[in-house]
Amino acid sequence: MNGWNGKILEIDLNTLTHKTYPLDMDMARQFIGGRGLGARLLWDLVGPEVDPLSPQNVLIFTNGPLTGTGYQTSNRFSVTTKSPLTGTVLDANSGGFWGMQFKKTGYDALIVRGRAEKPTWIEIKNGKVTFHDASDLWGMRVFEVTRRLGQDNNKRNVLCIGPAGENLSRIAAIMNDRERALARGGPGAVMGSKNLKAIVVEGTERPEVVDKDRFKFMLYETRKLLAASPLTSQALPEFGTVVMMNIVNTVGALPTRNHQQTQFEGAEAISGETLTEKYLVRNASCWACPIGCTRISKTDKVEGEGPEFETTWAFGAQCGIDDLAAIIEANSLCNDLGLDTISAGSTIACAMELSEKGYLDSDLRFGRADLLARCVEDMAYRRDLGDDLAEGSLRLATKYGHPELSMSVKGLEMPAYDPRGMQGQGLLYATSNRGGCHMRGNMLGLEVLGLPKLIDRFQVQGKSSFVILHQNSSAAIDSLVVCKFTNLGVADEYFARVLSAVTGIPYATGDMIKAGERIWNLERLYNLREGFRREHDTLPPRLLTEAPTDGPSKGWVSHLEPMLKEYYRTRGWDENGVPTPKKLEELGLAQFVEQVNRETTKP
Amino acid sequence: MNGWNGKILEIDLNTLTHKTYPLDMDMARQFIGGRGLGARLLWDLVGPEVDPLSPQNVLIFTNGPLTGTGYQTSNRFSVTTKSPLTGTVLDANSGGFWGMQFKKTGYDALIVRGRAEKPTWIEIKNGKVTFHDASDLWGMRVFEVTRRLGQDNNKRNVLCIGPAGENLSRIAAIMNDRERALARGGPGAVMGSKNLKAIVVEGTERPEVVDKDRFKFMLYETRKLLAASPLTSQALPEFGTVVMMNIVNTVGALPTRNHQQTQFEGAEAISGETLTEKYLVRNASCWACPIGCTRISKTDKVEGEGPEFETTWAFGAQCGIDDLAAIIEANSLCNDLGLDTISAGSTIACAMELSEKGYLDSDLRFGRADLLARCVEDMAYRRDLGDDLAEGSLRLATKYGHPELSMSVKGLEMPAYDPRGMQGQGLLYATSNRGGCHMRGNMLGLEVLGLPKLIDRFQVQGKSSFVILHQNSSAAIDSLVVCKFTNLGVADEYFARVLSAVTGIPYATGDMIKAGERIWNLERLYNLREGFRREHDTLPPRLLTEAPTDGPSKGWVSHLEPMLKEYYRTRGWDENGVPTPKKLEELGLAQFVEQVNRETTKP
Repeated sequence: MNGWNGKILEIDLNTLTHKTYPLDMDMARQFIGGRGLGARLLWDLVGPEVDPLSPQNVLIFTNGPLTGTGYQTSNRFSVTTKSPLTGTVLDANSGGFWGMQFKKTGYDALIVRGRAEKPTWIEIKNGKVTFHDASDLWGMRVFEVTRRLGQDNNKRNVLCIGPAGENLSRIAAIMNDRERALARGGPGAVMGSKNLKAIVVEGTERPEVVDKDRFKFMLYETRKLLAASPLTSQALPEFGTVVMMNIVNTVGALPTRNHQQTQFEGAEAISGETLTEKYLVRNASCWACPIGCTRISKTDKVEGEGPEFETTWAFGAQCGIDDLAAIIEANSLCNDLGLDTISAGSTIACAMELSEKGYLDSDLRFGRADLLARCVEDMAYRRDLGDDLAEGSLRLATKYGHPELSMSVKGLEMPAYDPRGMQGQGLLYATSNRGGCHMRGNMLGLEVLGLPKLIDRFQVQGKSSFVILHQNSSAAIDSLVVCKFTNLGVADEYFARVLSAVTGIPYATGDMIKAGERIWNLERLYNLREGFRREHDTLPPRLLTEAPTDGPSKGWVSHLEPMLKEYYRTRGWDENGVPTPKKLEELGLAQFVEQVNRETTKP
Repeated sequence: MNGWNGKILEIDLNTLTHKTYPLDMDMARQFIGGRGLGARLLWDLVGPEVDPLSPQNVLIFTNGPLTGTGYQTSNRFSVTTKSPLTGTVLDANSGGFWGMQFKKTGYDALIVRGRAEKPTWIEIKNGKVTFHDASDLWGMRVFEVTRRLGQDNNKRNVLCIGPAGENLSRIAAIMNDRERALARGGPGAVMGSKNLKAIVVEGTERPEVVDKDRFKFMLYETRKLLAASPLTSQALPEFGTVVMMNIVNTVGALPTRNHQQTQFEGAEAISGETLTEKYLVRNASCWACPIGCTRISKTDKVEGEGPEFETTWAFGAQCGIDDLAAIIEANSLCNDLGLDTISAGSTIACAMELSEKGYLDSDLRFGRADLLARCVEDMAYRRDLGDDLAEGSLRLATKYGHPELSMSVKGLEMPAYDPRGMQGQGLLYATSNRGGCHMRGNMLGLEVLGLPKLIDRFQVQGKSSFVILHQNSSAAIDSLVVCKFTNLGVADEYFARVLSAVTGIPYATGDMIKAGERIWNLERLYNLREGFRREHDTLPPRLLTEAPTDGPSKGWVSHLEPMLKEYYRTRGWDENGVPTPKKLEELGLAQFVEQVNRETTKP
C-alpha cells in the first residue's frame, strides 16, 4: 500500500472477537490519519447518548501515513474516544515506539469496542490477534506490566494502563513504552472501564513508500533543517522542554499557585538549567527522532523519563513547590500509576487553594512538597481525598462548592501558559476542542519566542487569525502523524511534499492546512452534537476578572469576549460558534450539516 | 564604535561643502539604521512645503549596524527622500557592494542637500570628501560611468544616475555597482535635480563587533540555516527570483496585459526554468551573501545581471510579451539608462492599453516585443511619447484622460502579484507607505508558498493581522540592513540576537518588531503630514470591480474595504487611518502627535 496499510482492525471485547475491514481511502485522503481519521471514525461510532465510561464508548488507536516510514519523528500515534473528563471528542497523542510498531502490524486503526467480562490484555502480532487473561496483571503498576509483557523497544511494544485507569480516574492516562503517555482527558479510564489492561504489538510489515528517491532526499533535507535550527539542534536536546520554565516565568505567563499569580519566585530552582545540572542522567529520544528532547533524570528515589515542562510546572509553580526532586518523583509516580501529570498537578493545586481558603478540610497547602507523592498515590487508588482528586479539579471544586477554583476549560486542566500574559493562548484554550490544551496550536512561538515572528502577546484585536492558523496546522500535523517539534525546523507545506512522496497522492500546497481545518470543524461539530454551546467556550472567571498585581502581566485579565467574536467570524462560523453550511460545504463536510442542525436546535 | 560608526556626513551641494556630526545614539537605537534611520532624519529635514525635485529635498543614504560586518547579506543600504513619483516618504534599498564600502568610509548616513551649479560627482575616501566636476560624465550611461570612475567590487564602489535621472524621469533609479538599483519611486530624478552624477566610496575602516565570539557563532549558525532551507540553498541559487513566474501564474495571480487578466499563456516561455536553460551564463552574488540569487544572463545583444522576477513580469506578462530575449535586453537597457524596471514595464503596458483602446495615438500594442527597447530609450531621453512615459503610468494615463488605467497605488506601479488572486497583497499595496510595493511585507510566503504556514489567499476576514505583522517585520529588516531572503531561513528574533552581539546593546525579544512598528507609524505620520488621507489607501478601480473571467481567481475582485477597516483597527489607528495618540505613545512617538494633529486638521 501507499503510506496507509489500508486496513482497520476492530475488536469487540464483549465477545473477544475481532474483524478486519478496509480503510475507506477517500476518508483517509480527506482526514489523513492519526487525530483526523480518529475523529472521523468516532463521529460514526459514538453519539451523544453514549456515556464515556460505558461499553458503548470506543477506543480508536490510529497511526498515520508517515508513521513508521522512518521520516523524522514518525513514531507518534493517537487514541481517540469520548472523554470521561470533558465529554468532548478526545484525541491524545504519544511518541515513543509503540506507534511505529503498531503500524508494522499492518493496520491503520484499531477500534476497541465493548467491555471484557474479566481483565484482559490483547496481543497483536502482524495480522494475528490473541486475547489473554489479565487477572494477574490487574492492579499492577505500569513499569512492572511493561516489563512483564516483554517490552523491547524496536521489536515488541507495550501499551497499558496503571491503577489509575483501572480505578476509573477521569484523569488517567494510557501509557506506552513504559513512560510515554496518551495523557490528557482520561483515556486511561475508558480503557479501564473496558477491563482492558494492555495492548502489545509486534510487527514486521514495513510501511511502503511510493517515491523512494524523493523520500530519501527529503530525509536528507529534513536532517539538515533540524540540525540547523537552534531549537531542535541545541535548546531541546540540551535542556529538554523544561527550557521554557525561565522564559515563560520572565514574561509573566507562568501560572502560579492555582493561577493566583503569573510569576513564580522558585522558577529558577525548577528550571531546565537546574534539571540539567542536578538530575540529568542522559538524553533519550523516540524512534526515528534526531532531536532527542527526552530527559532521563534521577533522584535518590527514582530514575526515569522526564519531567517535561508542563509536568514540572504543574507540580511546581502551580502548587507553589520549588523542590525539583519531589517534582521528579511525582512525575515518575504518575507514569507508573498511569496519570496525566498536568491534570494531576493542577487538581492538587486546586485542592491546595480550597484547603487554604477553608472550603476543604485537608492538610494540603501551597508549597507542601512533602505531600505530593502521597497525594498522587491516593489519586490513583481513590483513597481518602484521592477519591475526589481522581475526578479532576472541576468535579472536585464543584463538590466543595467552588467550581470557579478549577483552572480548567470544559473540565480539562490548562497547562503552563497563563492567558493573562498571552492573550492568544487564552483564546486557544477557550476554543480548543478537547478543553484547556496547549497542543492544539500553542501560541508560545508567536507570543513569546518570536517564532517565526513575534506578535504582541497582549494584543487582542486581530489575534484570532493566528490562533486559527495554528489550530488548523496542529490538526494536520497530528494526523500525519509527526512530532510538532519537527515543525520548528520544517514548514507545514514541506510535510505535504513528504506526504506526497510517501502516498503517491499529490498533496498540493494548501491541501494539508485545509485538511487541518476540516478536522477542526468536524471536531467542533462533534462537540456541538454533544451539547456544547457558545457559553462553554470560556475560561475560569479568575482569568477574566483577577489581574496579576505585579510582574510583566500586571493589570491584565484575559479579554476573551472580543477575541471570541472575531474568532467565530474569522472561522466562518455564526455568532453562536456553529460552522455555517457554506463553510462546511467548502470543507467537504456538507453531509454533516443536517444532523448537527437537528441536534443543535433541540429544545 | 559598536555596530554604528556614530557619524553622519552632510554635504551641501549649493556650496560644495560638507560637515560631520555625531549620530544621535538614542535615535539610532530606536530606528536602528537603513530605512528607519532614514525616515527619522527625513522627518526633520523635509516638510510638506518642499517639492521633491527642488534643491530643498534631500537624499539620505544610510547603512545599518549590521552593514559591512560580514554577517550574511549585510551588504545592503538605503536611500531615503521625498518621492517625485508619489509624493510620499520614499525608501529604496539595494544590494551589491556599495553599502558595505560606504560603511567602511566611517559614516552611518550621508545627507545630500541643495543643488550643484554644474554637474558634479563626489568622492568619499574614509573621512575625506572631494567634489569633482562631472561635466564630461553628464549624459553618459551607467555602465560607462561606473567603469570610468574605477568600480572595483571590494575596494572602490560607484553609485550613479544614468540619462533617465538626469532628465528627471519620475521613475529613474539610482544605480550602484553597475547593475544594482535603488529603483523605486524615482530617487534617480532627485539625484538628477541636484546635478549630482555619482558618489564614489572607498573605505578601510572595519565596522566593530562588540561580542566577537558570539557573532562568530551566529555566522556559523546562520550558514547552517541558509544551507538547510530549500529556498535559500536550492530554489533561489538555481533559478533566481524568476522561479516565481510559473508558481504565481499557476495560482492565477500574475497580472497580465495591464491587469486585464491574472494568468499569462506565455508564462512558461519567460520562466526561471527557461531563463536557466537558454540564457543563463552563471550565478553571482552580493557581498557576504551565500545565497547568490543573482543571474548573469546573455543574449545576442547584451550580457549582464538579471532579470529579476518582477522585471520579467513587467516587460513580459504585463505587456503581453513572451520573448525572453527582448525582456533581458529591456532590463539591461533600464540598468544602463537608470530606470526602475517595474515602473518602466508597467508604464509601457499602460500605454499599450491606452493605445489599443484608442485613447493614445501610438503603435504600441500588447505583445509588441519589437518596440520594447525603443520605448525604454525614449523614456530615458524623454523623446516623443517617451516624454510622457518618463512621468510614470499615473501621469501618463491622466494626461490621456484615463487615470483608471494606471496600475499603481499612490502613483507607484504595482509589481507582479495580483490582488484579486492574493487578497492580502491588495491590502499590502493599498497601505504601503511608498505606494504599490511588494517589499513592504510581501504576502507571497503566506498566501502562495505556505511559508511558514499557508493562509487562504482569498480570505478577507482576519487577513489584516498577517499583513501588519509582515509590514512591521520588513521595516525592521530594512533597517538592519540585511536581505529579506535571509529571513526565509533565519527568524526575525534571531536577527535581534545578532544585533545585540554586534552593538552590545541587549535587544530583547520583541524590540526588533517594535522598532519595525515604530518605523511604519512614523512613515505613516510623514505621509499624513504630506496630505495623504484615507481615500489614498486604495487600489486601481479595475482591481475592485473587474473580476478575471477564468483561471483560479475567476470571479474575484479585491475586497479591500473590509480589510482596510480591520487593518486600521488592528493597527490601533482611528477610522481615518490616523495613528491614535495612545498608539504613538506606546511606540515612543508621542512627540510627533501635535504636529500631525495640526497638519491633518487643516481646512
